[in-house]
Formats: sequence, structure tokens, C-alpha cells
Amino acid sequence: MQEVPETLEGWYTLHTFRRLDWPRWKALSTADRAEVVSEAVEFLRASEAHADAPEGSSALYSIIGHKADLMFLHLRPTLEEISALERAFARTRLADYTTETYSYIAATELSLYEIRSRGVIENPMDAPFVRARLKFVVPDKRYMVFYPMNKKRGEDKNWYMLPMEERRRQMKSHGTIGHKYFGIVQQMIGGSVGLDDWEWGVTLFSDDLIQFKKLVYEMRFDEVSAVYAEFGQFLLGYRVKPEELDAHL
Amino acid sequence: MQEVPETLEGWYTLHTFRRLDWPRWKALSTADRAEVVSEAVEFLRASEAHADAPEGSSALYSIIGHKADLMFLHLRPTLEEISALERAFARTRLADYTTETYSYIAATELSLYEIRSRGVIENPMDAPFVRARLKFVVPDKRYMVFYPMNKKRGEDKNWYMLPMEERRRQMKSHGTIGHKYFGIVQQMIGGSVGLDDWEWGVTLFSDDLIQFKKLVYEMRFDEVSAVYAEFGQFLLGYRVKPEELDAHL
Amino acid sequence: MQEVPETLEGWYTLHTFRRLDWPRWKALSTADRAEVVSEAVEFLRASEAHADAPEGSSALYSIIGHKADLMFLHLRPTLEEISALERAFARTRLADYTTETYSYIAATELSLYEIRSRGVIENPMDAPFVRARLKFVVPDKRYMVFYPMNKKRGEDKNWYMLPMEERRRQMKSHGTIGHKYFGIVQQMIGGSVGLDDWEWGVTLFSDDLIQFKKLVYEMRFDEVSAVYAEFGQFLLGYRVKPEELDAHL
Amino acid sequence: MQEVPETLEGWYTLHTFRRLDWPRWKALSTADRAEVVSEAVEFLRASEAHADAPEGSSALYSIIGHKADLMFLHLRPTLEEISALERAFARTRLADYTTETYSYIAATELSLYEIRSRGVIENPMDAPFVRARLKFVVPDKRYMVFYPMNKKRGEDKNWYMLPMEERRRQMKSHGTIGHKYFGIVQQMIGGSVGLDDWEWGVTLFSDDLIQFKKLVYEMRFDEVSAVYAEFGQFLLGYRVKPEELDAHL
Amino acid sequence: MQEVPETLEGWYTLHTFRRLDWPRWKALSTADRAEVVSEAVEFLRASEAHADAPEGSSALYSIIGHKADLMFLHLRPTLEEISALERAFARTRLADYTTETYSYIAATELSLYEIRSRGVIENPMDAPFVRARLKFVVPDKRYMVFYPMNKKRGEDKNWYMLPMEERRRQMKSHGTIGHKYFGIVQQMIGGSVGLDDWEWGVTLFSDDLIQFKKLVYEMRFDEVSAVYAEFGQFLLGYRVKPEELDAHL
Repeated sequence: MQEVPETLEGWYTLHTFRRLDWPRWKALSTADRAEVVSEAVEFLRASEAHADAPEGSSALYSIIGHKADLMFLHLRPTLEEISALERAFARTRLADYTTETYSYIAATELSLYEIRSRGVIENPMDAPFVRARLKFVVPDKRYMVFYPMNKKRGEDKNWYMLPMEERRRQMKSHGTIGHKYFGIVQQMIGGSVGLDDWEWGVTLFSDDLIQFKKLVYEMRFDEVSAVYAEFGQFLLGYRVKPEELDAHL
Repeated sequence: MQEVPETLEGWYTLHTFRRLDWPRWKALSTADRAEVVSEAVEFLRASEAHADAPEGSSALYSIIGHKADLMFLHLRPTLEEISALERAFARTRLADYTTETYSYIAATELSLYEIRSRGVIENPMDAPFVRARLKFVVPDKRYMVFYPMNKKRGEDKNWYMLPMEERRRQMKSHGTIGHKYFGIVQQMIGGSVGLDDWEWGVTLFSDDLIQFKKLVYEMRFDEVSAVYAEFGQFLLGYRVKPEELDAHL
Repeated sequence: MQEVPETLEGWYTLHTFRRLDWPRWKALSTADRAEVVSEAVEFLRASEAHADAPEGSSALYSIIGHKADLMFLHLRPTLEEISALERAFARTRLADYTTETYSYIAATELSLYEIRSRGVIENPMDAPFVRARLKFVVPDKRYMVFYPMNKKRGEDKNWYMLPMEERRRQMKSHGTIGHKYFGIVQQMIGGSVGLDDWEWGVTLFSDDLIQFKKLVYEMRFDEVSAVYAEFGQFLLGYRVKPEELDAHL
Repeated sequence: MQEVPETLEGWYTLHTFRRLDWPRWKALSTADRAEVVSEAVEFLRASEAHADAPEGSSALYSIIGHKADLMFLHLRPTLEEISALERAFARTRLADYTTETYSYIAATELSLYEIRSRGVIENPMDAPFVRARLKFVVPDKRYMVFYPMNKKRGEDKNWYMLPMEERRRQMKSHGTIGHKYFGIVQQMIGGSVGLDDWEWGVTLFSDDLIQFKKLVYEMRFDEVSAVYAEFGQFLLGYRVKPEELDAHL
Repeated sequence: MQEVPETLEGWYTLHTFRRLDWPRWKALSTADRAEVVSEAVEFLRASEAHADAPEGSSALYSIIGHKADLMFLHLRPTLEEISALERAFARTRLADYTTETYSYIAATELSLYEIRSRGVIENPMDAPFVRARLKFVVPDKRYMVFYPMNKKRGEDKNWYMLPMEERRRQMKSHGTIGHKYFGIVQQMIGGSVGLDDWEWGVTLFSDDLIQFKKLVYEMRFDEVSAVYAEFGQFLLGYRVKPEELDAHL
């Protein structure tokens, strides 16, 4: 029987991607557009301040390319709060000029192994590094990239059939690369086994865009990624703050 | 010649997913929306009470993310009753503001092996645990996740070429994990070989959402899942009762 | 050089799947709908009576779930007759309320091996069992399921590289399962190598729906299916006769 | 270093598939439809006569099933001429009642190996069989099937890592099957490495439809196909000559 | 621990593909179309002159087949400049007659290994061949083909698990083929690990279209491509200069 890594979970996360219907949007009068933007700004400000819930974090990003134009990122303690935000945006007028092209649901996750490697902890949530990972506050960084991933279960190479010790060794080596980028790239790990189509959703944040490429490329040569990682699509963007939304649209 | 596990089947099941056309929905007057909701509530109440059939069970869920907004779950003794419900909803006005994005058809299933492991049973349907599995009544739980799955038929790792004894051993170990979650997560197993695109459809119900993640993750390290399971998409939601539908929309 | 199984072919077959645009359909007046249905019934009656061709067979099925609402099955001696039926339906008014979501083209097929195993036959078409297979008349059964399939050509497990004797042995074992369901499930085999995307299209007919599940599941443990079969989607439905169409819509 | 088979190329080829919007098409008045057809017939006649270019060949086919209704096949010496034909059709009124569902771009191809196997040739284009293959004129055959394909580059079975001699041997055996169908099935080979998504596009022409099935099935048992061929979708149709277009639509 | 090839990056690149809605476009009056084209020409001229940024390069291509009609290629020092161009086009009237069907984001890339193989270089950007690769100016060539690609991470054949020396050897052999086409085919390599769905985006430019086929086919027999390359779709087109746009549309 395989040893299963225990995990702690924090907030639920929703990445929701929207494509703007530019022709219809442009057909609005300047006054109408101002009203629509003003309502959307209000929604964004309230989300960022998690006015809808005692805790949480939210942000808006402009997405590059055909996959989407906008991405809302919401973190909240309950699925109901996440769902309420999704439907609250659907009720804004801006939503009427967009369609949802993709979304991802997960929960912030930390393995007990990671916690224990820092020493025995009685009440993990009292430890600042645990709180920072599980009650993840979207950092004030310019760039963001999101991608979902699985661990391979191939006929020969199967992550889930490796002994715990081997998985631990590989994850530790993987973490070493992450640490090299400490202060440069910040990552949010969402566990989504049983919640969405992939096993994890990774979101990277940085003020230095090219570091996403450097980090992910370096990790690709690391055994755990090289052999066992399967990746979904990559969605890239940059932060749009409430006061920037008007100019952006 | 391989020994084939005998199965008992109960009711047919339909999971049908619908996306709401929010802009058109919002364009309705308050009075119109009230009328539409009222008719939908009536449909949902009648479905839940299986007014259309002597036996059965139904429920409505709000789905998170871009895959859908609503999911109706219907269990009925015959395919005709399932089909009648599908078309009855299509005839409601609410249906006109939605599109069907996905669906899944199966039949509740129990292997005779599972039954026999509890002792010889003359008339299985007389046994409460058999009836509970085959005439599955949707439990009054807050959260629901649905995912279809196959057993792998790879070039080297092929579930269907394993000896019966080996399959039995692995399924038993698998069941042990399920039992750990007894009272926390309830599962409905639909067999869909010959009926829909995957071999099984699994639906989990719980009042504690994070247990879906815990359960599925723990099972992923179990040999039968680690090596032989192939998963489709995961669709996650929470129950919407008739009296909650108005506020929800 | 591999020995190629010789085949006899009979009629061409078209499975064509249509989704109904319920909102637009419901918006029609009762009188208009009656007219549209009446024209469709006429088309269906004429098709079933192969009024368009000296020989053939046709039927209509209601399909469960999001994949389609209706499926027309046409068998005719020539592709031109099949095409004419496809375009004749497109010219009905009912077609304007539907879109074609999927279709499959094949030719009824019988391997000479199967024929010879019953003894030497001079003029195969004189043998009733050959005629029944190649000039397949849609049986008066309630349920129907269609699925396309391939034989695997994996790097290690490759059907087409097996010696003829081995293929023959496996197909014979496979046939044995089919015979167990004689009188319960009737099957139509369409060969579509060089005609459509998969190598075969299988259509099962029965008055006992659950037997589709039993039969396909039992076959899945048979070596030729377990190791070598690759399946496309499964489309499930029940027969709608001309006189039932009005009530159905 | 692997020996690369040298190739000669002739004309560029475009297969372009169009679905007809039947409801909108039928809504036209008889007079309007006559005008639209008349313009399309003119376009087809001019294409077939390659009025737009000094050399070339064109034809129109009716496609069976949901993938498309019509396919234009154009062969021309330059990509610009191909592009001009694509845009010329887009400018016809018939195009407004269709959408392009698929297309394929390639160049007629002949391997120098094939040429040399017939003896040393100084100026290949002087040889009739070379001209016939590279300046391929669409034959006056009733049926057509198109499918794209790749040679497998699996982890174990990799066409591109076989020694030249082995590839030559297998292609020769493959050609032998083709020769058996000489006069019955005519084939056009388009090379599309670096031009479109697959490595080759194959188009078969015959007056005897069932021979497509016989030929492709026989080849599937040939080592080069059985082990190394990967196929895309198959698109099947029959010729529609300019004078038949009116009746066809 | 695997040795990771260090890379230098230059400008960000965006390939954005647009399909023209011909029926709506043709419905415009000649005067309206002239206005729309004139605005688009202005946008294109300004892009080509990188009027929006101190550095950069841009070009427009006509794409063959159903995948798209037009492709804009933009290279700029920052993602914000790329995004601004994407949104500036969205604001033109021509954009309203198109939809974005695909896009690709990357950064021009050069491996330090390639640089060092030419001798030690203190300030790489001072070296003309480095500048030419990283600050890539779209060449004045007639034809263009774009395709994304990955290096395989199979269960047995895994590029990322090869020793650095072996990767270096294979890439060198690969480069040798590229050099044979020096002056005939020019290539732009975009690295997109961590930025978009594939690891690299390759764009080839030439005045001799058939050389794309020759080059890519020759490379396919090279070990690094034969064994380790996985390709996405190929998008083929020819340059449309500002002064040609009117005639083209």
C-alpha cells in the first residue's frame, strides 16, 4: 500500500477567463461605456477588498492572445463565496460583452511533508509560512501565468507508484529550483484532484516576465518535471488594477 | 477465457449540464423572470417527487466555472422516463435561456462479487445495501462532483487482461479507502459500458467539500487507480433546492 | 506478407445525428408545427418503405443526452441514394430546426472467412444468412446504440501484424459471445476503412436495453476487445416510428 | 546520419471543404437561387478550364455526412494562384451560404527513388509518368476520398529512424498493392511536410466506390501501413460537374 | 542533476491569426470598404515602422486555407507593447469583420551554447549574429510558415533526460541542416516555455516556397527531430504589404 502525502488546504481559488466581444463593445456610446466600466471597477474594487467575505483575495489580469482578454482570480474560504463572485460578475453589464472561455477551480494546498521539513508544528496555521501559502494574498506583481498540470501515470513511468522516499527526494530537488527564484517569482499552488480536470493549477507572479520562461525551462530538466509532469495550456497576462481598467478597455 | 464480473443494474441515470445565457436572461423583465423561475421550480419539485414515474430520484446543482451553470441529475427505472424528463425540461421556458453543454447516461451498478462478499443472497433486491445502491436516492448533501472514468487497456498495463483474482484483490483494497470515508462522502456508481463514452460515471456527495479532494487523492495512490484509472472531466457543484432557485438565478 | 481477410459488402449505411433547436421549434404556432411534423412523417414513411430506391431500409431514433436529439439510419445500395436521402431531409422544414452534429458512413460487411466457416458457398448472396447481413433490414427493436471502432496498431500490440490464424482464433472467440446474445441483441456491422474516420461502425438493436451493457462489457474481457479494440463515442436511443413522431416532438 | 529520400514537386494542391447553410439557402427565391448557381457554375467552369492560370486542374465534389457538403479541389503551379481561387470563390454569392469547415494544402510529390527505379532519367519532367504524377489532372472518375496521414515516430517504432534500405523495401511492397488496383483506383499524393498539419494528403479517385474500402483495407495489413501509418479524417464524396450543380443544390 | 542550457532572450513575439467574415465584408459599400482598408493600412504601416515603440518589427501575411485569412506578426521589447498592438488592431474597423482564431506568444531566443560555439563573447548583444537573432527584423521574403513544437518527454525517449553532451551533439547536427539552407530559408526561433502552450514557435521565411517542404522534410530524418520533435499545426502564408492590402481584400 502506497503512502499518501497528507495535505493541508486553505482557500478555494477560481481562475475565470473572459473574451471581450470587441465589435459590440465598441458600438456602445462613450457614455454607456463609461457606465459599464464604472460598474466593473466597483465590482473589482469590492472583490479586491473581499467586501463579500471576511477573508480572501482577488485580482484582474489582461490576457494575451486569442484564449481570452481578461482573467479574474478569486480566492475565498468557501465555494459558495466563489460561486457568488462568479454570478455577481455575470450580473454586471461588462459581462454581457464577454464570454467565459475557460476557468479553473482548486484549493490552495501545502503538503504536511513540506511543513514537517521545517520542524514539528502543533498548529500549522499559526506558522506564517503556512498561512502565507494557504491564505494566499495575490501579490502586487505585474505579470501572471497560469497552467494546470498532472503527474504522469504512464505504463512504465508512474509517479503514483514510486515509493514515498523517491517522491520526497524528487520534490525536494524541485523545490530547490523554486528557491533560486525566491523574491523574483512567487508561486501559488492549487490542488484540484477531485475538483477540476487536472491535479494541480500553478500560478506564477513576477515583475520580471522573462523569469517565468527561465524558471519553467530550468524545472523542465528536473527529474520530477522531465519525466512525470504533464502540462495543460499556459495563460499569460499582466495585472490591471481598478484605476487602470477604463484606459485598458 | 477471462472471467467476467457479473453485475446487477438498477435505475438509469442522466446527468445533464446546462449553461445559462446570462445576457438574455437578464434582459427579461422581473415579472417574466418570476414566471420562468416559477415554472422551473414546479418542474424541479415534480422531478424530485418523481411525479412522472412510480420510482426514482432527482436533484439540481449549481456548477462552478465555464463548463456549465446547472446540472440536473435524474434516476428512473426506464430510459423512456429519463428521455421524457429531458424533453419536459426542454419544454420549460428556462430551457430557452440555456444550452446543454454535456450529459452522461449510465445505469446504477453493483457487482455480484460485492454482493457475495457479504454472504449468499437469494433475492439481492431484498437486501437493503443492494437496494440502496441500485435504487439510489440522491442524498441531502450540499456538494456534488461528477467524473467519468475508464479502466486502462494499455499495451502493457491492461486491466481487462488481469486474472479475476488480481482484479478482485485490487478492487477490495480500493473499497477499503472508500469505507474510510463512510458517512462523510457518499458515492453513486453508474456503469455505462455500451451506453455512453466512458465505462463508468462516478458521482460523489458530501457536506464537506474538501473531502472530495482528500478521497480522490488518496485513491490515486491505490494501485487500481494509480495504474489502471483514466479520468474524464470533473464537474463540481452544490445543491440548489426548489425553494432556492429563485434567489440563485 | 500478411494475409488479408477478404470481405463481401452489401448496402451503404448512413447514421446521421441531428440536434433540435428547441427554443425556435417551440416558437412555432401549433398549426405550423403540425405541418412541419406532417412533412417529416411523410419523409420518414417514404424512407422506411425505401420509396426512393428498389431496395434498402431506414429508421428514426430519439437520441439521449447532449450529443443529438434524432438519428436517421439509412441503408441503400448506392452512395447516391444515401446522399439523396440526406439532401431530401435537408429540404424538409423540420431540418431547418435542427443541425447535424455527427454522421457515419460505412458499408455492411461480411468476411469470407465467416462465410466459409459455414461451408463452401458458390453464390454467397443466395445464402439467407449472407443476405441478412449484407442487405440488413433494420429490425423492429425498441433500443439502438451506435459506436465506431478501430483495431489497435500500437507499437507493441498491433492487430494488423498478427498472423491470420491468430486473428481468426480471436475473432471466433469474439463471435461466441455474440452468439450467446442471439435473439436478444441483433448487430449490424459496417466496414468503413477508406470511407470514414474509424474502421468499423457497430449498431446494436434490442428490446432489452440493459443487454447492450451486458454484451459490450462481456466482450471487453475478450482478448480481441481487451487488447485490440479502440472505441469512439457511443450514441444511444430508442426507435421513433412515423406515427410516434408528432407526440415525440 | 539518415539518408533522406529526394523528392520532386509539381503543382500546389488545395482541398477546401464547405458546409451549406441549408435553411438560409432554401429561403432564397427561385430566381435568386438560379442567379447564385449560375455564378457558381461559371466559377467552376473557369476553374476546371484553369482560366486563371496557364496550367492546372480543378473539380467539385459533393461530400457525404456532417463534415461538409462541397469540396473544391484545385491544383495550380503557384500558391498565389491557389490563394486567388480561394478568394475568388469567397467573392461568389454561393460562398455566402457556406462556411469553410476544413482545408488541406500540399504539393504533388514524386520520390526520386520511384523515378530511378524506372531507370536513369535526365530530365524527369520529360517522362510521361513523372508529368502525370506532378502535373496531376483530376481524372473523370465518379468517386473521391481524401485523407491526410503521417509516418509514425513512436518511441519504439519510428519510420524516420529506419535505414533507407528498409524504408525502400517497405514502400516497394506498398506500391505493389497500389499496382493491383491500376486502372481501378487512381491516386494523387500530396506532400505537405512544412506546409500543413500532416505529412501527406492522399486523394483516391474511382468509378467503383467499394474499391476505396478494398484498397485501403488491403494496405492496412502491409507493414508500412500496419506499423507506421497514422491517419487523419476520411472525407468521401462524388463528382459534381458544372452542369449538375443546379440539380444538386 | 541535469545541466540546463542557458538562453538569452530578445523581443517578445506575437503571431495573431484572423479569419475574415467574407459575407459581412462584401456587404459593405465600396466607400465603406475603402475607409476600412485605409485605416487598416495605416495601422499596418505604423506597426511595420514600430511607431508605437523605440524598437521592433511587424508584418502582415495572407494565410491559406480554413485556419485563418490574415496573420499579424509583431516583435516588440515588452509584453505591454505587444498587448497594445493587439488591442489597437481590435479597435480598427477591419477587426470587426474578423475573428481571432489562433495566436502564439514567445520570446526570441538564443542558447549561450550557440553563442559560445562561436568563441567567448563578453557582451553578446554587441555581436551582430546575436543581435540579428534576438532583435529579429522580419525579412522581406514572400512566404512564411509558422509551427509550434515540443521536445518529446516520452516514457522511454525523453529529451530532457539526455546528458547535455548528447543534446549538444544532436542540436549541432540539426544546425548543420539549417546552414545548408543559408540564404534560402531564414528562421526565427521563439522560446515559449512558461509563456504559451508549446515549448518553441518556429517561423520560416523564404522567397522559394518549396524550400519549406525540403528543409522540414530533411530535418525530420535528423535524430533530434525524428525521435524528439512533436509538432503542432502548420500555418502557411505569403506577405501582404501595406500597399497590397486593398487589392488583397
